Amino acid sequence: MSIRRPTNGPEKAVADWWRTDIIDMTPGEIGYYGYPIEDLIGNVSFTQMIWLMTQGSLPSPEKAKLLDAALMSAVDHGPQAPSIAIARMAATCGVGLNNAMASAVNVLGDVHGGAGEQAMALYQMIDDIVQNDGVDVVVATQKGLEKQRELFGKFIPGFGHRFHPVDPRAPRLMAVVEGAKTDGEVEGRFLAIAQQVELQLEQEKGQKIPMNIDGATAVIYAELGVAPELARGLFCLSRSVGILAHAWEQTQQGGRNKGPIPRDLLWTYDGPAKRSVPDSD
Amino acid sequence: MSIRRPTNGPEKAVADWWRTDIIDMTPGEIGYYGYPIEDLIGNVSFTQMIWLMTQGSLPSPEKAKLLDAALMSAVDHGPQAPSIAIARMAATCGVGLNNAMASAVNVLGDVHGGAGEQAMALYQMIDDIVQNDGVDVVVATQKGLEKQRELFGKFIPGFGHRFHPVDPRAPRLMAVVEGAKTDGEVEGRFLAIAQQVELQLEQEKGQKIPMNIDGATAVIYAELGVAPELARGLFCLSRSVGILAHAWEQTQQGGRNKGPIPRDLLWTYDGPAKRSVPDSD
Amino acid sequence: MSIRRPTNGPEKAVADWWRTDIIDMTPGEIGYYGYPIEDLIGNVSFTQMIWLMTQGSLPSPEKAKLLDAALMSAVDHGPQAPSIAIARMAATCGVGLNNAMASAVNVLGDVHGGAGEQAMALYQMIDDIVQNDGVDVVVATQKGLEKQRELFGKFIPGFGHRFHPVDPRAPRLMAVVEGAKTDGEVEGRFLAIAQQVELQLEQEKGQKIPMNIDGATAVIYAELGVAPELARGLFCLSRSVGILAHAWEQTQQGGRNKGPIPRDLLWTYDGPAKRSVPDSD
Amino acid sequence: MSIRRPTNGPEKAVADWWRTDIIDMTPGEIGYYGYPIEDLIGNVSFTQMIWLMTQGSLPSPEKAKLLDAALMSAVDHGPQAPSIAIARMAATCGVGLNNAMASAVNVLGDVHGGAGEQAMALYQMIDDIVQNDGVDVVVATQKGLEKQRELFGKFIPGFGHRFHPVDPRAPRLMAVVEGAKTDGEVEGRFLAIAQQVELQLEQEKGQKIPMNIDGATAVIYAELGVAPELARGLFCLSRSVGILAHAWEQTQQGGRNKGPIPRDLLWTYDGPAKRSVPDSD
Repeated sequence: MSIRRPTNGPEKAVADWWRTDIIDMTPGEIGYYGYPIEDLIGNVSFTQMIWLMTQGSLPSPEKAKLLDAALMSAVDHGPQAPSIAIARMAATCGVGLNNAMASAVNVLGDVHGGAGEQAMALYQMIDDIVQNDGVDVVVATQKGLEKQRELFGKFIPGFGHRFHPVDPRAPRLMAVVEGAKTDGEVEGRFLAIAQQVELQLEQEKGQKIPMNIDGATAVIYAELGVAPELARGLFCLSRSVGILAHAWEQTQQGGRNKGPIPRDLLWTYDGPAKRSVPDSD
Repeated sequence: MSIRRPTNGPEKAVADWWRTDIIDMTPGEIGYYGYPIEDLIGNVSFTQMIWLMTQGSLPSPEKAKLLDAALMSAVDHGPQAPSIAIARMAATCGVGLNNAMASAVNVLGDVHGGAGEQAMALYQMIDDIVQNDGVDVVVATQKGLEKQRELFGKFIPGFGHRFHPVDPRAPRLMAVVEGAKTDGEVEGRFLAIAQQVELQLEQEKGQKIPMNIDGATAVIYAELGVAPELARGLFCLSRSVGILAHAWEQTQQGGRNKGPIPRDLLWTYDGPAKRSVPDSD
Repeated sequence: MSIRRPTNGPEKAVADWWRTDIIDMTPGEIGYYGYPIEDLIGNVSFTQMIWLMTQGSLPSPEKAKLLDAALMSAVDHGPQAPSIAIARMAATCGVGLNNAMASAVNVLGDVHGGAGEQAMALYQMIDDIVQNDGVDVVVATQKGLEKQRELFGKFIPGFGHRFHPVDPRAPRLMAVVEGAKTDGEVEGRFLAIAQQVELQLEQEKGQKIPMNIDGATAVIYAELGVAPELARGLFCLSRSVGILAHAWEQTQQGGRNKGPIPRDLLWTYDGPAKRSVPDSD
Repeated sequence: MSIRRPTNGPEKAVADWWRTDIIDMTPGEIGYYGYPIEDLIGNVSFTQMIWLMTQGSLPSPEKAKLLDAALMSAVDHGPQAPSIAIARMAATCGVGLNNAMASAVNVLGDVHGGAGEQAMALYQMIDDIVQNDGVDVVVATQKGLEKQRELFGKFIPGFGHRFHPVDPRAPRLMAVVEGAKTDGEVEGRFLAIAQQVELQLEQEKGQKIPMNIDGATAVIYAELGVAPELARGLFCLSRSVGILAHAWEQTQQGGRNKGPIPRDLLWTYDGPAKRSVPDSD
């Protein structure tokens, strides 16, 4: 039978099962949120396309620049990161780059990939307190931090770093947001909240617990109105670049079945000493 | 350098980073929880090995039979299940069976794979009430169901089925557990709890909401002392069999880039009508 | 112990096991191919960062625009594509967006994701014939097509489309490449080869077998000097955008355990009729 | 609409799109290759179910014992194996056991998981020479080894081991196959071929290149008539057990974002020295 878009009859339910707002297609035509692909090609950047696909509208070049900054800054944190190590190990096991990327992006879960999403949720909780309780950012941040610790424990997502005394990405990203605020591109509400969180953490501890990459990209995504859950998805896109780069470098380096440590080192075994299998009867 | 197990010096920290109780290995020797592999081969079944690897001890053949029943009963629920559909679609995309299995087992998440784990948690909550509050199973089940609904909403995991009026696997699995109880292999505490849950649900609704596969395998895993989170892992092993079977059948059937519905049917598009890309300046 | 980069002793072999040219890191400093991250942020786009990470150098804005065009044009081909369908199904199974993305990008294998890589290999084979045999593009394309069919069968990767009489992305992308050639950004050697392949296919068949998205992006990647295997990786990045967009839309639509077709339709069963399990003894 | 199996009309094509021999289902009934699930439960083991699902028939308990031996012997080769290391690292990233299993089983590709499949192909090539050329096993093995090296290089899959001078699993598995041959359960043709390969390798090299786990399980799968590609799938099932066991142990050990080496060791950086980002205009 010929290609068709069912509009009634028993096949309509089948077509509706896969309904979407994102893409329309008929033979010879492809449109994303109504924009013909041939009009988009050459006129919008990859980053603008990422926005269109996930938000449904075309961003201004200035907004796209903010998204650019968030996406380009989180691509890689070295082969000690599980996502990167997995990509490199996978690349030596006889699978394609698509598979290496999949095994790696898969682990960007609540711990490895969730801090940005959690920082956004914190900022939004504080912003909600400002909006609803008629208090200023200082008080709202006090209340917000208190509630955050009540719900999730003492760890404040987006601040402090195991490795970097100051995460070099965060102040630079904040400068970019400041610029966008000056230009009237964003309101700066979440920037102010994040800076207030950083300040109060310092006052509490008597030393700076500086904003990290997750806290900084969370400011950008919040200023841009991205949903926290989607922000994790965008982080996955970003980190996919580093994952691909390392999988590809490892492919070129060669190696077979790369394990985590050199082959001649054995792990520590802590289990029972050698013993006999009991007779099964 | 030669293969070695560091016991001190700077390499010890590297060896410790990968410490495990599960497997010991030196050139020519492999032991699982202390049992030499050559003694296990031919003497224990695959199912007993699954137990050894995840629990650290060799199960009796009778206990292994219970695990057998839980594992073999959840292998497949047809190509409408997302895990199975994904396996079949993946098999037509030019990836290996390992990749098709990975894409499919990956989606056995909280919704697709979590009902058994949740049913176990419910049974254990009821059992805790029995142990701690000195009430009988009837009262503990009333309290447990109340608390469950308070915490997680009205849906009771492990009971009722969208498709099957009575899930044919559940009564048969319960008969197997009854047999094991009669033989003194298991206590039957969780069997009694699950039956009580089923009874109270029927009394509440005025009609039977029969136990389903998740509720039934949860009884077996609970009787065997398996942790709820691990039970999901065992379900993943079980479903991996159906996933493999369907990926393999699809490979033999052929096809390229199998989509979810026949190629000539287009989906319903609900987005904006065709529109022009605005000038970017 | 404190964070350190071993330069000798037993730990050096461990550090070397993870050697890389891509990223350097010390506390407070991150550099990609030598560029400090704080200098890159705000100065290079996400697309330029993709190039830097995978090629090791910063591209000119004009080259980045070509890469932009290739990346933004392949993001999505609708929910009939297995990668997109898998993303949507996964999103209803109780897993994170990272997991939905992984299951989906995983299937961009030789069939679903390989045509671009194969088209590049064909173009490069033809280009090698031009370089080595001293023949012109017309003759080299004749020889190349012949050899291609000998090795891989009659299907010519990158040309013709099951669905689109003319793939609307290809001519537009070729116009972008033409522009870059006019501006002296690329040589246009692979553009000429691809156009010659299209012409000869038309002459052979008596009707146009027009270039498709894979054939077109292959021209861009070849002009940019990207290795064919890496081109597949870049396609995976590109398609990850559509995968994310659909997973996210499905998340917002809701649904639990979305199968491929509406729930009330059962599949066709072709196996043996109902039969008894034989006695096992 | 009610649940239905379309037998004609427009919905028939949709039902046929998902046709299968494996599973039949109507409300209240589930059958695998015609066997009602309630008859299988309690009567067949998990291993017999694996056979039924992938081969379409119920195996004798003796054949199932052979399959048991192959499956239970390949579950784990320690945390140095990429599949196991990935499982452990994934388990610390905030994803479920299903996701950890997926990332890990995904890498059982041509290199990490393919040696068994390749050994089977070699045995079958030798067996084909015996059948078709009317020569004995000795001559057929000579010819087969020659052809193997011509096609795939000097590495003979299934023999020799980087780590074990003698792989302790192989001789024990061969003893199990010998027993099955004595009992008339299998012909022993592939056992003889594998032994002949081992012998000729020793004669060539002047020292034993002993059969490894891949060569040994390949004998079992070949004796059982399993297709080589499916054998890789069965290995994936087998290794999934070790993957699950290690992911679970790591979950219990705790840890966040476990990288491949202790956190205080940095990798070796080989890229360009620190440099300035050039002005973009």
